[in-house]
Amino acid sequence: MPDGKRIMVTPEQLEAVSFNADGLVPAIVQEAGTGRVLMMAWMNADSLRQTLETGRTWFWSRSRQEYWCKGETSGDRQYVRQGYYDCDGDTLLFVVEQEGNGACHTGEYSCFFRSFGPDTDPASTSES
Amino acid sequence: MPDGKRIMVTPEQLEAVSFNADGLVPAIVQEAGTGRVLMMAWMNADSLRQTLETGRTWFWSRSRQEYWCKGETSGDRQYVRQGYYDCDGDTLLFVVEQEGNGACHTGEYSCFFRSFGPDTDPASTSES
Repeated sequence: MPDGKRIMVTPEQLEAVSFNADGLVPAIVQEAGTGRVLMMAWMNADSLRQTLETGRTWFWSRSRQEYWCKGETSGDRQYVRQGYYDCDGDTLLFVVEQEGNGACHTGEYSCFFRSFGPDTDPASTSES
Repeated sequence: MPDGKRIMVTPEQLEAVSFNADGLVPAIVQEAGTGRVLMMAWMNADSLRQTLETGRTWFWSRSRQEYWCKGETSGDRQYVRQGYYDCDGDTLLFVVEQEGNGACHTGEYSCFFRSFGPDTDPASTSES
């Protein structure tokens, strides 16, 4: 089982991150190795710091107005291998090792399990 | 040279997309084949429709308050191979073939060329 590895961030790197009017920045989570995009969620300054310090992914839930550490309840933890910020500093990308059943609360491995257009993915055939 | 391929989206799929208070939804762009995450930008309902109809990526620029078609000026076009929406319908993912010099206006191939922590990427050694 992998463990959380602290990322030694510099003040300059942290200052390069710009948060929106609500103090949030979108964070894309991608699986190490496969390159699969697993999810997107929001971080504030504290959850970003927590993520870099603990090597686990921490987010800010806009609906529940609280911090959450991915997998703390479900066991489907994410261990950060690398973190990036984009050219404008207003989007983050974390490459992680995904534990357990995947990233999506629906039970799917990735949150992006539904595609536009004719259904080509057997996982997205469920009727609603 | 690849061309834009229309995605035959259903009304149900379009209705599953939820836009924020500003009428926007974040769209992650990932390179087909390599799985590399190239950029994140915002779409409104019209740019999403345009993207699905033309097979090129269209966004809404919040700073310029205008539509833009990626690569229309630079030539660094993106041809959509697949589009996904996430479990909450509030984030999109487009898998594209990237033409030209890449996705970033800085000249880097991906917008996520700077990592947190000790510098391990020779592409991110530039001084500011």
